[in-house]
Amino acid sequence: MRILNFSVDEYKLRLRRVKDRMRSEGLDVLVVTEPANIYYLSGYDAWSFYTVQALAVFQEIESPRWIGRLIDAPTAHVTTYLPEECIFPYPDIYVHTPDRHASQFIADIILRESPSVKVVGVEMGAHYYTARDHAEFVKAMPNVRFKDAELLVNWVRFVKSDQEVAYMRQAGEITERMMKRAVEVAAPGVRECDVAAAIYHAQMSGTEAFGGLPATSPPHMGFGARAREPHPIFTDRSIDSSSVANIEISGCRLRYHAPMSRTIYFGKPPQRYRDLASRVIEGIDASLNLVRPGVNCEELELAWRKTMSAHGIEKESRLGYSIGIAYTPTWGERTASIRRGDRTVLEPGVAFHLMAGLWLKDTGITITQSFVVIEAGYEALTRTPRELIVKD
Amino acid sequence: MRILNFSVDEYKLRLRRVKDRMRSEGLDVLVVTEPANIYYLSGYDAWSFYTVQALAVFQEIESPRWIGRLIDAPTAHVTTYLPEECIFPYPDIYVHTPDRHASQFIADIILRESPSVKVVGVEMGAHYYTARDHAEFVKAMPNVRFKDAELLVNWVRFVKSDQEVAYMRQAGEITERMMKRAVEVAAPGVRECDVAAAIYHAQMSGTEAFGGLPATSPPHMGFGARAREPHPIFTDRSIDSSSVANIEISGCRLRYHAPMSRTIYFGKPPQRYRDLASRVIEGIDASLNLVRPGVNCEELELAWRKTMSAHGIEKESRLGYSIGIAYTPTWGERTASIRRGDRTVLEPGVAFHLMAGLWLKDTGITITQSFVVIEAGYEALTRTPRELIVKD
Repeated sequence: MRILNFSVDEYKLRLRRVKDRMRSEGLDVLVVTEPANIYYLSGYDAWSFYTVQALAVFQEIESPRWIGRLIDAPTAHVTTYLPEECIFPYPDIYVHTPDRHASQFIADIILRESPSVKVVGVEMGAHYYTARDHAEFVKAMPNVRFKDAELLVNWVRFVKSDQEVAYMRQAGEITERMMKRAVEVAAPGVRECDVAAAIYHAQMSGTEAFGGLPATSPPHMGFGARAREPHPIFTDRSIDSSSVANIEISGCRLRYHAPMSRTIYFGKPPQRYRDLASRVIEGIDASLNLVRPGVNCEELELAWRKTMSAHGIEKESRLGYSIGIAYTPTWGERTASIRRGDRTVLEPGVAFHLMAGLWLKDTGITITQSFVVIEAGYEALTRTPRELIVKD
Repeated sequence: MRILNFSVDEYKLRLRRVKDRMRSEGLDVLVVTEPANIYYLSGYDAWSFYTVQALAVFQEIESPRWIGRLIDAPTAHVTTYLPEECIFPYPDIYVHTPDRHASQFIADIILRESPSVKVVGVEMGAHYYTARDHAEFVKAMPNVRFKDAELLVNWVRFVKSDQEVAYMRQAGEITERMMKRAVEVAAPGVRECDVAAAIYHAQMSGTEAFGGLPATSPPHMGFGARAREPHPIFTDRSIDSSSVANIEISGCRLRYHAPMSRTIYFGKPPQRYRDLASRVIEGIDASLNLVRPGVNCEELELAWRKTMSAHGIEKESRLGYSIGIAYTPTWGERTASIRRGDRTVLEPGVAFHLMAGLWLKDTGITITQSFVVIEAGYEALTRTPRELIVKD
């Protein structure tokens, strides 16, 4: 039994692109540890990244090697295209013990498969490549030169294939349904956690045609005074009347994300708050109207900033980030950001979450848009209208 | 507005214990980066750990310093007991940029607050303390000696207070409800993702008296042939008749966990499979019957192993692990494990997930028990009967 979400040809094309970049970086081996990158290159998909695991890509050997915990090896057989001889499991004595470390095991495999290895790339800033993982790795390979190759695979992932965009569209459909349920359920007197329950239910159920997955992150929901916070966790308090709620969520389809935020006002919003919403929407439109191949990230931000500063509003945090495959803890790809100084050029197949959230001194508002760049401009990944939602 | 889940006295007691351990390790400063440890010591609770953040504990300064992203500072004000002057936010130019790193900012704060600092403890193997975080930190503090202090706070967390155990009991109540819903919904023809939807809904709703939170991990559900895998992600396939499903879940209350696994058989289980279930339950009982203060972890494993080897069954992976507060990606505390060679002695207030899962060549079975050690033996954190669940 095999479950592959892409053709073997697509995996091989991805691998070839990674090897091309490895060549220009002078890497003999790339030790891929970021779960999204492992999934992208091999298909491997399990909740096993709380223990040490890696996909070792060799410049001189065709297939990469999966190295992970023994009990997770069956999942490597099911979810990757790799033949049995490329799966290298380590025993449980390497798990959470002070005197042994799985980096030693990984180093042994690399040196056995490629005894003349000279330069090894590692993903220095990737989540789950801990300081200790690296220190043990360096100790176990004293004659090797290590080079930071963080984001090497992430940048290959930056441009999505048609199949990837199709999955992101499905993720967006799930996102729409999640938000619809949130708006239906949320009301004064309802507990925050019961809104979350409805969101999660819609997220996993997906549609009649396809199911969903948990996203990298819980719904970020800031109710009332907590609308000033971007990443609070919901509580079991009841929603107040005459209050706002910021809700940031993402549907997930086969690990692909399409996030969205909306703000709900319970009661009649004051004119001042309605004006704030109009300005945010105006700023987003100014930015989106520019989107097309050839434009760069900071130009999108500039369009937003000009619009907002005319109203005296400043957003300190970046305006958006690249999206695609993601594992916890973040649905951002950590490559391009929509911000001043980022001159990454847009091309068809790149995707962003335009995260126009404002967390102000006394309130907050979050109306956002995920999109993929197409020849003609952009395709919205969610079709929920960009507006302040009022439940009066 | 402040939301504190414990008394300020309890936070201060925890801090004192950490400082005692810091003294015996010769640490002037401990840079706490593991989200569970930050929460334990300060109350800080936000989904912000995908960017660099730390709680710096100084031996010579009373209150720790929270250092994190500017937009998350309001959450530090709401969820910690720390006064304003202990909150140090960094601007967004430090977020996901190649040429700047927030470790530099953290180093500056530490050197400013305690210019004569000599020895700094860091959590080398903690999730989210990446190789790059550490490398930048070392570069920014060239005159300081770094010492690995991973698990220092985790070991202080090992023994739970009465209030902590009360929260874990609530988590266990939620776990029971989640499993009840899973068993109600799961049936041949039902999609796996719809079982997940029901589980998640129960998880967030909690009870009438208190709400739940997402756990560190999705439900681990292995259906049919995939019952051989411990950590697969569910799909949108329909459940087959005459098949098994392993379901591992955890309720979560204010970040405290109480996990549980059960196996459901759809149809009439063959006698061989019934026998397997009886043996697992016999092994768990043998182990649980030994639990009391003074006994050590490997003795619990030995009781299980003796029972199982009499039936010719061997479990390669460890039999369990310490539980309590947890953030994604794992609900294990990474301290004591129930396994051969672990001589950690039980005492009242320590808690474990006895994870008696078997993932065999052709099938799998997972019947487990979370418990807290009390004077008289143990208290079960979930009361769901330990048995094979049959839906015929």
